[in-house]
Amino acid sequence: MTLADRWLLPEGVDEALPKKAAQIEHLRRALLNLHESWGYRLVIPPLLEYLDSLLTGAGSDLEIETFKVIDQLSGRLLGIRADFTSQVSRIDAHCLKGEGVQRLSYCGSVLRTMPAGLDGTRSPIQLGAELYGHGGVESDIEVLSLMLETLNVAGLNNLVLDLGHVDVVRGVLGACRLSKDQEARLTEFYKAKDLPELDAYVSELDVTEEQAGWLVLLPRLCGGADVLDRAAAGLSGVGGSVLDAIALLGEVSALISRRYPDVGLHFDLSDLVSYSYHTGLLFAAYVPGHGNAIARGGRYNNIGEVFGRSRPATGFSTDVKALVALVDFEVVTPKTVLAPICANDGVWKAVKALRLEGYRVVEALDDAWAGHVDFVLKLVDDIWQLVPAEK
Amino acid sequence: MTLADRWLLPEGVDEALPKKAAQIEHLRRALLNLHESWGYRLVIPPLLEYLDSLLTGAGSDLEIETFKVIDQLSGRLLGIRADFTSQVSRIDAHCLKGEGVQRLSYCGSVLRTMPAGLDGTRSPIQLGAELYGHGGVESDIEVLSLMLETLNVAGLNNLVLDLGHVDVVRGVLGACRLSKDQEARLTEFYKAKDLPELDAYVSELDVTEEQAGWLVLLPRLCGGADVLDRAAAGLSGVGGSVLDAIALLGEVSALISRRYPDVGLHFDLSDLVSYSYHTGLLFAAYVPGHGNAIARGGRYNNIGEVFGRSRPATGFSTDVKALVALVDFEVVTPKTVLAPICANDGVWKAVKALRLEGYRVVEALDDAWAGHVDFVLKLVDDIWQLVPAEK
Repeated sequence: MTLADRWLLPEGVDEALPKKAAQIEHLRRALLNLHESWGYRLVIPPLLEYLDSLLTGAGSDLEIETFKVIDQLSGRLLGIRADFTSQVSRIDAHCLKGEGVQRLSYCGSVLRTMPAGLDGTRSPIQLGAELYGHGGVESDIEVLSLMLETLNVAGLNNLVLDLGHVDVVRGVLGACRLSKDQEARLTEFYKAKDLPELDAYVSELDVTEEQAGWLVLLPRLCGGADVLDRAAAGLSGVGGSVLDAIALLGEVSALISRRYPDVGLHFDLSDLVSYSYHTGLLFAAYVPGHGNAIARGGRYNNIGEVFGRSRPATGFSTDVKALVALVDFEVVTPKTVLAPICANDGVWKAVKALRLEGYRVVEALDDAWAGHVDFVLKLVDDIWQLVPAEK
Repeated sequence: MTLADRWLLPEGVDEALPKKAAQIEHLRRALLNLHESWGYRLVIPPLLEYLDSLLTGAGSDLEIETFKVIDQLSGRLLGIRADFTSQVSRIDAHCLKGEGVQRLSYCGSVLRTMPAGLDGTRSPIQLGAELYGHGGVESDIEVLSLMLETLNVAGLNNLVLDLGHVDVVRGVLGACRLSKDQEARLTEFYKAKDLPELDAYVSELDVTEEQAGWLVLLPRLCGGADVLDRAAAGLSGVGGSVLDAIALLGEVSALISRRYPDVGLHFDLSDLVSYSYHTGLLFAAYVPGHGNAIARGGRYNNIGEVFGRSRPATGFSTDVKALVALVDFEVVTPKTVLAPICANDGVWKAVKALRLEGYRVVEALDDAWAGHVDFVLKLVDDIWQLVPAEK
């Protein structure tokens, strides 16, 4: 192994040197404070769990993304978390047994086997919030608003919000009574937005003309505010859950545009880019010039069922490192004092008092700080005093 | 897998529910602020690295403790960090090229294959500080003082500090000109403090009577302030680095007892409980009633050599979760307001303003918070106002 190899980090893995680390720490605190001010309480799930628990209810996407190790103590397979959601729902289901609404937030490292997200990272610092025990549109709006506030606190204002609802595709596919294989093929076309292939495939399906119309319309329900009207008109014959979903999207988007008039609204009713645990409203926030979402979330009722407690749930998450990469900001450092080596008790007491007062006091082990401090601690008239530093 | 299994966490792995999570977050911030006030700058090394880089210079203890995974992208072996020291020294060696003294701090999760430390954990939140580029006793004292301040800020006052120096054992073994095998056997006896076996073994070694005296004296140099005098007398014939080490221990302990008169001092000159990278002063802090150290550190010059930069270095680390487990304290939460659902713009504006003022405002999605808040937001005389809550 050469010297340069030892410096190298794996692809999608990065480290934060002092300037960036200070930004990450500053933003982390500001965002957790924000979540606290909304009534969300911090939990710290373990980085490592039995793989079975970690993947429970989360679907196969997450399994591929999860690093696995053998537990030398139990011989069982462990996973390093690639996502917080199933961990936090386990905590809601098992550890916090209150029947009422539960608001929880989290922030910590996750690891993924493959690069993903805005910056192709495999080691995001994931920060998010989850709301359990409420199935109404009010909790969708609360969580979505908190996501937008989170991005605002991070300094991002020029946002586009993408809204969707899993019941639209599900309702249409259900109404067409297709086989599992046919549903899977269609889902692939929707994910890939492959319209010509989709149209050709639908024309050969054994469905009514009206149903074929729904199937080819879905991926075209994508764009601005007119999408909901087009959807309500074009899918009126599907009825039931599809129209409820469209109405809910209308209600959510109306309130969000009143609260956040600067946020661009975009609808994509065939959007399926998310873990398979989602059950209702889906949302994702984008910044101009980046194809990947900076934050995303949605409803995922009943994920806690496998832990013995089925509850409505909605939440969102983002990556603190990706946020910091988008907005360069200055973190204020305390006024800095250069002190002589604290060999005698007098200078030690003076230094201790200054630190308690909020100064950053650096012992002069060498002259590296000279010229970079605000004050120098000097013995003047037998008293240790702050003297403005020459810069 | 049964329901109960899914709740279970692996041995030595734990999670923090809201009360404990708030304590951990509070202490984490207080300690990083303390380190900043001493001039230590935060860095965030990656959780995952090429195993070669991670273990470089760190010795075999760390290799056994490190979880390994295969990188699907490169096919190479990766390690989840079990310790920060070699990561931070890589950052000093490679990323921060200034020649002067460098002070760095860190805080984050590490994972270990086997339980260790005060509470048998495999997933500590390690917090520590490292000082590079200064080889004198002043930096030993600075880092040791910062460790004690760290424990004080965590609410631990009743501490015992254990001091040692690797050059004592190394110097004596070197002066006796033993084979590698003999040195290894003796080291085992010292680690196990197995005095009868040691005495029997030494009596059969081909060494002078004086040398045999040194070898059996070493593990008996353990106790209070008299140890240094007994060591200086008993090992005077060894000379060189051993006497320098004893003198350094005297200087450090004298200053530390002036600064921290309440800290009990204990010496153990055959202490070898640490990673093999240490090169000088060793220290560990204990709380009464616990056999494992709550924080430990020491000098480890030249660890950066494998990264192309050999520098003096000293540092310490502790586990934030273990600190919180020792001291139960109340984290102050903001004054809490229960607000009606923010459907109209008036209440939304009032809620937003209250949150900016520092209140925690919870939307009343259900009545779970009723009786647990300080104020209720009510429309009085057409103005949204805070009304003290009935408890």
